[in-house]
Amino acid sequence: MTDTTAFIPQPRSPVEIDVRVRYAETDQMGVVYHANYLVWCEVARTELIRQRFLPYSELEKRGVILAVADLSIRYHAPARYEDDVRVRTWISEIRSRTVTFSYEIDRLANSEVDVRLATATVRLVALGADSRPRKLPDDLLRALAAD
Amino acid sequence: MTDTTAFIPQPRSPVEIDVRVRYAETDQMGVVYHANYLVWCEVARTELIRQRFLPYSELEKRGVILAVADLSIRYHAPARYEDDVRVRTWISEIRSRTVTFSYEIDRLANSEVDVRLATATVRLVALGADSRPRKLPDDLLRALAAD
Amino acid sequence: MTDTTAFIPQPRSPVEIDVRVRYAETDQMGVVYHANYLVWCEVARTELIRQRFLPYSELEKRGVILAVADLSIRYHAPARYEDDVRVRTWISEIRSRTVTFSYEIDRLANSEVDVRLATATVRLVALGADSRPRKLPDDLLRALAAD
Amino acid sequence: MTDTTAFIPQPRSPVEIDVRVRYAETDQMGVVYHANYLVWCEVARTELIRQRFLPYSELEKRGVILAVADLSIRYHAPARYEDDVRVRTWISEIRSRTVTFSYEIDRLANSEVDVRLATATVRLVALGADSRPRKLPDDLLRALAAD
Repeated sequence: MTDTTAFIPQPRSPVEIDVRVRYAETDQMGVVYHANYLVWCEVARTELIRQRFLPYSELEKRGVILAVADLSIRYHAPARYEDDVRVRTWISEIRSRTVTFSYEIDRLANSEVDVRLATATVRLVALGADSRPRKLPDDLLRALAAD
Repeated sequence: MTDTTAFIPQPRSPVEIDVRVRYAETDQMGVVYHANYLVWCEVARTELIRQRFLPYSELEKRGVILAVADLSIRYHAPARYEDDVRVRTWISEIRSRTVTFSYEIDRLANSEVDVRLATATVRLVALGADSRPRKLPDDLLRALAAD
Repeated sequence: MTDTTAFIPQPRSPVEIDVRVRYAETDQMGVVYHANYLVWCEVARTELIRQRFLPYSELEKRGVILAVADLSIRYHAPARYEDDVRVRTWISEIRSRTVTFSYEIDRLANSEVDVRLATATVRLVALGADSRPRKLPDDLLRALAAD
Repeated sequence: MTDTTAFIPQPRSPVEIDVRVRYAETDQMGVVYHANYLVWCEVARTELIRQRFLPYSELEKRGVILAVADLSIRYHAPARYEDDVRVRTWISEIRSRTVTFSYEIDRLANSEVDVRLATATVRLVALGADSRPRKLPDDLLRALAAD
């Protein structure tokens, strides 16, 4: 596996987390401030890492940092205060030094997905304790890629 | 009940919410940034209002805003990324125009309270849709004061 | 001018704002949390709107909201606490209902641009007071498009 | 100087910083979210430390952390989006291990103080690189206490 050969994981169940919108997350437009959706994405992807491998805090203690390299997000409908929001995330690409998460963010009604709020893609790059790029540890890579 | 006569509610079960510390909530000291505890307090008190009365968003639709008038918080130990944190809140005083919430914020270990992180008090004042102070609506006051 | 015909403004001086990194903006990685760069972009684009047209708050009072429709950002190097950061923004596309801002975010050393931190593009859509898409007001459109 | 004997610095010019309210700092009440005032206080006190001593980042590199031990804040009037806000801070008490900053937060009109928004007090405790309480370094203490 090299940086020029992407490894596309097989489809499998995404990981989902639910959040309730906090007052602090709204702005004077009466909706969630756009940058705050990215915080929810972070909560979802660390949950995926925890379920598949280890708490992310353990990863950092081992000297592996996953830093955001780039991201894109599209907003479909606004989230509002006290909305129940579901964030689904899955790994859409793994390379030797990077891992890309995709996201679907939806509003729930009666615990069911009701309205699409946003879709996003966030690419992370592995850094060592010295803040320089490094390969993803083999066990992490296998855990994330495993079906 | 007047503004100069405080009504102290009878002791009763506080409302508790649990939050897991988000990466976004930490700072470079490696702990939760001090202002973010106040966001958790807000999540806890709106949960108390929801359980005892109505979702806070409904209250605002009725033209009642509860704005923070003053607060104090003491930090006992730092919260860290991915910690499970419990926030207990209860109403420590109600007056005709203000309601005061007290908070105990603790770190959990194995779902049990383990370490006291912070204690806080937040006093809210009722404002009308015109942003001017007003009395708490009778039904809200009764709901919050009821044992 | 229709939604399918983009109007590309002529090149002209971008607007620049400088910010100093706040402690609250860092995370435990010791760098600025990735979502916070988008707040700086917002500060820069409202400054551009203020210089070319009106304070954004006046725009909202007139019933025109500019909501973020989508964005992308690429991180080149991390910003750190107390860094002096320059955000340059310019309008890269205007259509009848949308306006797109591009950004270059750099670290300063001795008041000169030193290191590229990030580049970003944010597309905004005009909404009316009813939260529905609307055309950009003519005077705003002319002010933003004027060389 | 011991922990039980407070040293009250002589009165002298406070340090002032100006901030313009960011959209991200508002909430759906249309005013600045209450916890965000504490971020401005942090910007003001690190500016005071920079002017009197060293950039706070240098202090941390020397293994001295100033962590918030407790704080109180009273809100007098709301700050709104694009308001120009002045934060004045001064040291109201120094002890061997703690330093207390007081704050006045005002809205400006035509570059002059116009309306009192909030007053606050924040007490910081010195921690070493091991996160345990330590004495303030002598040179920092002298710099902060000097008239």
